[in-house]
Amino acid sequence: MWVPREPGQRWWQREVRRRLPVLGWLPRYSLSCLRLDLTAGVTVGLTVVPQALAYAEVAGLPVQYGLYSSFVGCFVYCLLGTAKDVTLGPTAIMSLLVSSYAFHDPAYAVLLAFLSGCIQLAMGLLHLGFLLDFVSCPVIKGFTSAASITISFNQVKNILGLQGIPRQFFLQVYETLRRIGETRAGDAILGLSCLAALAGLRAMKNRLHPAASTEPLATRASIPLVRSCATARNALVVLAAGLVAYSFQVSGSQPLTLTGSVPRGLPPFRPPPFSKAVPNGTVPFGRMVQDMGAGLAVVPLLGVLETVAIAKAFASQNDYRIDANQELLAMGTANILGSFFSSYPITGSFGRTAVNAQTGVCTPMGGLVTGTLVLLSLAYLTSLFCYIPKAALAAVIISAVVPMFDARIFRTLWRVKRLDLVPLCVTFLLCFWEVQYGIMAGMLVSGILLLYSVARPPIKVLEQGVLLVQPGSSLHFPAADHLRDIIRDRALAASSPCFVILDGHHITSIDYTAVVGLAELLQDLHKHSISLVFCSLQDPVLRTLLAADLEGFRHFPSWEEAARCSEAELEVSRTACIDSTGESSLLPAGLIQ
Amino acid sequence: MWVPREPGQRWWQREVRRRLPVLGWLPRYSLSCLRLDLTAGVTVGLTVVPQALAYAEVAGLPVQYGLYSSFVGCFVYCLLGTAKDVTLGPTAIMSLLVSSYAFHDPAYAVLLAFLSGCIQLAMGLLHLGFLLDFVSCPVIKGFTSAASITISFNQVKNILGLQGIPRQFFLQVYETLRRIGETRAGDAILGLSCLAALAGLRAMKNRLHPAASTEPLATRASIPLVRSCATARNALVVLAAGLVAYSFQVSGSQPLTLTGSVPRGLPPFRPPPFSKAVPNGTVPFGRMVQDMGAGLAVVPLLGVLETVAIAKAFASQNDYRIDANQELLAMGTANILGSFFSSYPITGSFGRTAVNAQTGVCTPMGGLVTGTLVLLSLAYLTSLFCYIPKAALAAVIISAVVPMFDARIFRTLWRVKRLDLVPLCVTFLLCFWEVQYGIMAGMLVSGILLLYSVARPPIKVLEQGVLLVQPGSSLHFPAADHLRDIIRDRALAASSPCFVILDGHHITSIDYTAVVGLAELLQDLHKHSISLVFCSLQDPVLRTLLAADLEGFRHFPSWEEAARCSEAELEVSRTACIDSTGESSLLPAGLIQ
Repeated sequence: MWVPREPGQRWWQREVRRRLPVLGWLPRYSLSCLRLDLTAGVTVGLTVVPQALAYAEVAGLPVQYGLYSSFVGCFVYCLLGTAKDVTLGPTAIMSLLVSSYAFHDPAYAVLLAFLSGCIQLAMGLLHLGFLLDFVSCPVIKGFTSAASITISFNQVKNILGLQGIPRQFFLQVYETLRRIGETRAGDAILGLSCLAALAGLRAMKNRLHPAASTEPLATRASIPLVRSCATARNALVVLAAGLVAYSFQVSGSQPLTLTGSVPRGLPPFRPPPFSKAVPNGTVPFGRMVQDMGAGLAVVPLLGVLETVAIAKAFASQNDYRIDANQELLAMGTANILGSFFSSYPITGSFGRTAVNAQTGVCTPMGGLVTGTLVLLSLAYLTSLFCYIPKAALAAVIISAVVPMFDARIFRTLWRVKRLDLVPLCVTFLLCFWEVQYGIMAGMLVSGILLLYSVARPPIKVLEQGVLLVQPGSSLHFPAADHLRDIIRDRALAASSPCFVILDGHHITSIDYTAVVGLAELLQDLHKHSISLVFCSLQDPVLRTLLAADLEGFRHFPSWEEAARCSEAELEVSRTACIDSTGESSLLPAGLIQ
Repeated sequence: MWVPREPGQRWWQREVRRRLPVLGWLPRYSLSCLRLDLTAGVTVGLTVVPQALAYAEVAGLPVQYGLYSSFVGCFVYCLLGTAKDVTLGPTAIMSLLVSSYAFHDPAYAVLLAFLSGCIQLAMGLLHLGFLLDFVSCPVIKGFTSAASITISFNQVKNILGLQGIPRQFFLQVYETLRRIGETRAGDAILGLSCLAALAGLRAMKNRLHPAASTEPLATRASIPLVRSCATARNALVVLAAGLVAYSFQVSGSQPLTLTGSVPRGLPPFRPPPFSKAVPNGTVPFGRMVQDMGAGLAVVPLLGVLETVAIAKAFASQNDYRIDANQELLAMGTANILGSFFSSYPITGSFGRTAVNAQTGVCTPMGGLVTGTLVLLSLAYLTSLFCYIPKAALAAVIISAVVPMFDARIFRTLWRVKRLDLVPLCVTFLLCFWEVQYGIMAGMLVSGILLLYSVARPPIKVLEQGVLLVQPGSSLHFPAADHLRDIIRDRALAASSPCFVILDGHHITSIDYTAVVGLAELLQDLHKHSISLVFCSLQDPVLRTLLAADLEGFRHFPSWEEAARCSEAELEVSRTACIDSTGESSLLPAGLIQ
């Protein structure tokens, strides 16, 4: 269903089609697609409703905000998204970030969604999608691994039924362990059973193979049933736990901590709160923005990063192309529109996108079905949500985030590229302190490593009669002095007379600072009667150096020719040396070349 | 006199010698050196006294602060400096920065010197000298050219005798032009005469050639005299202007604006002010630091940059080595100690260093002489300084900074490397607004251009039966996706069956993110039955890729072997294509290689 653009369109038609990808697939929509999208949409819906309730808890917001955040993204992405599989909505990581920056206050969370949306939209319009390239793989891995631990541990208190545990990770660990004796038996038993059930269903799904036609009919029929159960496992587990809690409630005793009452009905349509009333006055917009601080950079950036990473992964798996800038526009619009429906910042969800892809979604129409399901549950089911035990939601979250922990990455990096362990470990460890510090420090460290490699390019120096210097990469300004020092030191240390050949065949570009450095080097060596010639320069570099009109610049197309010239010159200077014991007969320099 | 370290020393002896370069030259100090150092020291002293008075005016401080800042640097550098020619003291650019960050308040200026010194010392101890590599040539040129214009124009008001002109450059130009009618004739005539005299003496010095022995004795004797006059031109012009002002004063009418009374005597030795008394209370340390803000980064960094740049230039000219980290230590110590003598931030002065070198200074001992001269003038001459006309000092400054303006750099960059015009123009233009914004924006722009070239390395793609892809430089994480997208797009667009050879002979290093990108690309292309092989990888890169254990990774030592393999493989697949019309006889992949 994913069709390429047709030739022969006007530019505005092409632009509209690019900005509204729905125009590409809707005219060709078929009934068979509808059937597939319906199944996928319902399946994702059954996953998103319990997850939304649970993630709102991670974000430190009332549970209904999870659902408020779960439908606008589906609708918007259906119109503007370029990847059929991606579903936008609340996610574990975004909820963790929201809990850091929104101070468990819905007003801040909704404003954060609006502002993040504006930033993402602006990035999309300015084609700043390339900025995402500067988040390296070790930083992402470090962050997701640390997030999976903090998010899981954050839920242990709900499994144990403990209350009043602080948010900061280290305090949380300390308090949870100290008060482990206060564990409520009911919550613990239910939580662990839910965890076991979810793990079991997940394992079952992974081990399930399509039935061979030789097997009995009952087996063949049961396989799709088991698969459906495994796919909708979150909904099933939450439903079962809710039934248990309800029966306790009816019997009059309640050993479980429940979610509590959820306001019924759809969220009101209203602009996000640009100021906030507090007991003694109002917090103005400027103050709210200042309070959120770095969140205004981290939330939109990580939101886009997550969505684009997921979209790219599934685009590659299912063989279609995505447009990173269009994804930015879709995300931005979804967050802005969402904030009018009291949504907190949303992003692409890896887990639900995978469910969507596996159930064979055909177009983004699936999102429409999911969104409708969320709206229906908001309209009719909220009165039942109060019976959902917190421990069951905690189990849903833990089983969703544990697979994000990648222990092998440490071993892999040790084997493949040890230097990359530095940004990984920095990000991983600092994320336990504060997520934003971890990510920023990781990006900083990988940036510094990158700049270091530009500032200190590998330079091969061979001494075989002449001094052959071969920089391993382009010459940018931070490397200019380094190269000059190396050549100067080696040339002056060499047994005179010396001849230096700078082999530039790896140099693809050179900037003015490096040109100035070479000019000074030429003068410097000339003062010590050392010749410096260039060879094998690539065309653009040669043009730049010729334009700079360096004094004493000589270039040879190949190393061999430069070496031949050096031999002639060294021979002459040796002769001059010998002669100068008697009478100087140094040939005029003009004769040499 | 500049001696290399001796072999066979213990590590602590070497360390002490490195940290106290004076130990290297003092034991070999000779009488002939003393004569040269004495001459140079006196000459520099005659330059620094009038300049110090003038630069204090640029910094917006009382004139005596210029002298307070001029002696400690000379003494400290004599002990700790590694370049014999460099002289530390107040400079035009540093004074301009101080006027931005110290609010024309000596307390702030002295504290700024102390804190800058601490930062420079810390940078030296942490070996952060390499950070200076990240200031590119266009940024420095843009900054110095803009500074020469703003500093010169800042003095036009003194030449014209105007008062109450605002500091901000654009307002200054507007006000100066608006009030040009209020020009005081005395100041203008004196100022322009001084400028003409300085320009004339400067030109004379540049045109002066050593006398041939055939010329009459009078000519031969007059040449050194003229040269001395030209070298000490600042002192002579200021002296002459002072005499003119004094005779007016004696005659009872004073058409000139004078410097006014200067407190007599040496500055008191006391710690820098860590808080400041104001009419309604005190400004605490924290508040003062906050007020100076970005100055605490810009002042130490530019101070070091100026000193190291000058030291490197003269080291290269006079053939000795400097140690950037030791220069940082010397600068830091000079600023910290200076702040105890009410000095404002100091740095290496290009003009005076040049005077020092030209008069043939032999060791840093020259600084001792200069410093003593400044102390003597503080002790005995301050009562005379009040007669120095402001217009004469303005002329000294203008003639010192005008040569810093480099108009040719714009044309040179247009010819050599147009892209470098961007940081140059950004720095140049923004420096008129605020110096720090100009420098920071320039560094940011050159940083972005640098990162862009790393993120989008040149990638040559040749299509000749096979697709030959040759990245022009190392593969770092920001380039990973770009390379993958290019290869994927070209491979899928090619007429199938397609074979891709990635020629890695320019790749000197690769990081984990790029490895992951290649792994995904391999899988991706494999899904479309496209082969991707690598050739000519350098050893470290090959080791990394082998360690990563990529699925389907194949490497050939040369392009030719890869091409031969491709031919065989394409032949097989073509056969398979033909056969598959009848019956598939595709050879097992294992046979191909």
